[in-house]
Amino acid sequence: MKIVVIGASGDVGRSVADEFERGGKHEVIRVGRTRCEHQVDITCDESVTTLFEQLGPVEGIVVTAGNVVLASVEKMTADDFHKGLQDKLLSQVRVALIGQHYLSDGGSITLTSGIAVDDPIAQGSNAAASNAGIEGFVRAAACDFRRGIRINAVSPTVLIESMERFGPFFPGHEGVPAISVAMAYRRSVEGVHSGRVYRVGH
Amino acid sequence: MKIVVIGASGDVGRSVADEFERGGKHEVIRVGRTRCEHQVDITCDESVTTLFEQLGPVEGIVVTAGNVVLASVEKMTADDFHKGLQDKLLSQVRVALIGQHYLSDGGSITLTSGIAVDDPIAQGSNAAASNAGIEGFVRAAACDFRRGIRINAVSPTVLIESMERFGPFFPGHEGVPAISVAMAYRRSVEGVHSGRVYRVGH
Repeated sequence: MKIVVIGASGDVGRSVADEFERGGKHEVIRVGRTRCEHQVDITCDESVTTLFEQLGPVEGIVVTAGNVVLASVEKMTADDFHKGLQDKLLSQVRVALIGQHYLSDGGSITLTSGIAVDDPIAQGSNAAASNAGIEGFVRAAACDFRRGIRINAVSPTVLIESMERFGPFFPGHEGVPAISVAMAYRRSVEGVHSGRVYRVGH
Repeated sequence: MKIVVIGASGDVGRSVADEFERGGKHEVIRVGRTRCEHQVDITCDESVTTLFEQLGPVEGIVVTAGNVVLASVEKMTADDFHKGLQDKLLSQVRVALIGQHYLSDGGSITLTSGIAVDDPIAQGSNAAASNAGIEGFVRAAACDFRRGIRINAVSPTVLIESMERFGPFFPGHEGVPAISVAMAYRRSVEGVHSGRVYRVGH
């Protein structure tokens, strides 16, 4: 399969791309914001369209990119909240909406939510809303796609590899190795499910 | 209690305002976009701030307003999706973020999601994402608020009173009377829960 991994320079995306390359069954295209062989700005329609025009038809689309805004709900403004929605929720949805037209029949889209929906963290109201929005989109879009297109999401807890940076936001969380998270993306891309949210480590 | 109901000219909001007024325990302020005694544009920070400045301190904030975009996922653009997110998810969050500063200690905020998260409907990917986002926000914000402020959401199925307009989008749904939906808002405002989603009729 020809699989594009957007966010491939991050801890999750790199591990996912490595996992798909192991075994040599897939052609993996690594895409990042500023690094990787291909670049894209997923906050921008034109940039996403240009990427897919360059790549041609693909069979799997994986998005592990997008940031949320962490701020206490008492200090958060609607403008902060808007920025977080744009950067993670709408950006991942944009890749799905544009990318579907470059997916071969029976192709799949896999987005990334996160544990903060199910296990709220301090300053996490934007993270929870963005991740929940992605999961809601996935569940409904799965019923709406034609041509056998499938869509799922992976919701990881914090990665062991990212503990130094993100651990303080997740007190008492053991973390999960990136390789376990990568396996969930394989279940989505190589499996038969649609509308599923794969929770890893929680 | 002094309770502001934003969206009070809609089928849900009118029923909620009527229910709070019955019994005469509460002072209910009905707010709509163009009708009702007070007007507000919840897509706009200034308009929401002006409303709360006029009202002074309140003990309950209820939002039943906000529209989603219904479109097949195959035809939906990121721009359509953005509009839906702005009009329902971000607008309800805006009322919570600004309104909290006018809430007395122990006051409550009640937002409105909808059945389309749990039971996806055709053309419902934006509705599902917006409603799921509201529910995610509520769950996380509930952990983050101080001063005893509570926040919940009500997720109704289609109202019997709205069947003529919305019934075709909900085949096989029996619908629920507006009065039953209104009771869920009372549970939220007069009760002690926080971070809850009250599902009504589903």
